[in-house]
Amino acid sequence: MELIFLGTGAGLPSKERNVSSVALTLLQEQNNIWLFDCGEATQHQILRTSIKPKKINKIFITHLHGDHIFGLPGLLSSRSFQGGEELLTIYGPHGIKEYVNTSLQLSGTHLTYPINIVELSEGKLFENDQFVVETKHLDHGLPSFGFRIIEKDKPGELLVSKLKEIGIKPGPIYKQIKENTKIKLSNGQYIYRKDFLGEDKKGRVISILGDTRFTHVNSNFVKNSDVLVHEATFGGALEDLAEKYYHTTTEQAARLAKASNCSKLILTHISSRYQSEDIENLIDEARRIFPNTEIANDFTHINL
Amino acid sequence: MELIFLGTGAGLPSKERNVSSVALTLLQEQNNIWLFDCGEATQHQILRTSIKPKKINKIFITHLHGDHIFGLPGLLSSRSFQGGEELLTIYGPHGIKEYVNTSLQLSGTHLTYPINIVELSEGKLFENDQFVVETKHLDHGLPSFGFRIIEKDKPGELLVSKLKEIGIKPGPIYKQIKENTKIKLSNGQYIYRKDFLGEDKKGRVISILGDTRFTHVNSNFVKNSDVLVHEATFGGALEDLAEKYYHTTTEQAARLAKASNCSKLILTHISSRYQSEDIENLIDEARRIFPNTEIANDFTHINL
Ligand SMILES: [Zn+2]
Ligand SMILES: [Zn+2]
Repeated sequence: MELIFLGTGAGLPSKERNVSSVALTLLQEQNNIWLFDCGEATQHQILRTSIKPKKINKIFITHLHGDHIFGLPGLLSSRSFQGGEELLTIYGPHGIKEYVNTSLQLSGTHLTYPINIVELSEGKLFENDQFVVETKHLDHGLPSFGFRIIEKDKPGELLVSKLKEIGIKPGPIYKQIKENTKIKLSNGQYIYRKDFLGEDKKGRVISILGDTRFTHVNSNFVKNSDVLVHEATFGGALEDLAEKYYHTTTEQAARLAKASNCSKLILTHISSRYQSEDIENLIDEARRIFPNTEIANDFTHINL
Repeated sequence: MELIFLGTGAGLPSKERNVSSVALTLLQEQNNIWLFDCGEATQHQILRTSIKPKKINKIFITHLHGDHIFGLPGLLSSRSFQGGEELLTIYGPHGIKEYVNTSLQLSGTHLTYPINIVELSEGKLFENDQFVVETKHLDHGLPSFGFRIIEKDKPGELLVSKLKEIGIKPGPIYKQIKENTKIKLSNGQYIYRKDFLGEDKKGRVISILGDTRFTHVNSNFVKNSDVLVHEATFGGALEDLAEKYYHTTTEQAARLAKASNCSKLILTHISSRYQSEDIENLIDEARRIFPNTEIANDFTHINL
């Protein structure tokens, strides 16, 4: 599992930062990739990574501002050009369906794969055997959503030494024990799986929020995240501007990460007013509040 | 006057060529810039040139395929971010209005400048004191248009030596002579401007066609162009594919340039099947038919 930041700027592209997009690769988990937001030229950024568009099977749109969606029709179209066939599901606020359908229809784009467009409402978005994704309204003037991606706990490893102790030797029987809550041995003895498994492997939690004002209401939603990806359009000195334009500062995001007991904070959606020489200051002021903070650049990889 | 190619690829972006867009700079003529097509990430390409988005006052869209329009909403939006205030006129096929309006409205984009969207029909598109622009239907499956940009002839230079011969010395009188068809001197003599002007300075003609099959019907429309910008999605060997997919080959474009007595041919919209090592061959096969041919790359500048 890896986060690959494709665009980390705010509002409009600059030479240093493209507009918003981040990929969550689940190649080992389920051999596909989820994309969060898709600003213009996200597909161009993807060309410079190892990501294959046809592996992207879910796209989550936090909100409909242009710097988060204007790359979507092009990416859908290129996924088709490259022979994508697997269903693609797009989750986004009300209006995303009209945006995608109008763009594809007027441009005469016929996709080689089916798409399913789901307009968001708060709560559990979906669940499969490995993940639950929940979503919550944020505070950004127009509807903006956060996503909490919860990996399910995995059963622990088989305690081989303990099995050997009672005389059960390695063989197909181990697989049987692992796959059933109890089995009956040929001698009539019952083996209960729970007695021979190590501790559950705790699933990871990744929270990725769309643009938002700072509010403690989000604290519960991102609670105990292994990684919190949060916008920080402004530095700590510009709380007034952040409030006015429905954005968050570095320090506010750090306060949220601390209050909600996150393990790591990644800041993104950085205003182009900040040049590379300002970035160290932005990191420092956030780290004074929440030490395990990083600011993402385009193409930053975060292993989870 | 200069053509700046911003995207010269076909269908989808590659690392070598972005999708379609070409700028015609008219900075000396009227201090603005016209853009022809606006594929995704055209604004990103512009960041790497001296073009200022607020100088772009007309955008001509040849057809609605995604590789020609998906950069439009983002460019409009960034022009606004950068404080553009001047009217922007967009010319494009039927549907362009719905595409632009839907994209701007759903993304909550409020432009700082007025836009005027004109849906195309064949014939004279507009005329100002310096230019006439005409447009014509091409053959591309969906409506696709070509543009013929005709610079008006400018009156020749004042023949100073001839005026001196008859005793008229340099001064404000020269301006008067230049600006009026005839003037009366204090001695009662009439001076007719036509007798004291050099030859008209011939205006230039630039033809820029959208995607199209090869057809001799276009020959009259591009006749005597100083520069013809034409797609060449395929090499000469692939006429069948060109026909099937409503595109043109290098050789067909060269034949058109020759038959219509153009001075220079610039090929663009090159399929990503052709790598840099193939490009020389494509140029050669076109030059065998029409010697003054070039293949545009992204950021090729052509002085006119
Ligand atoms: Zn936003
Ligand atoms: Zn086309």
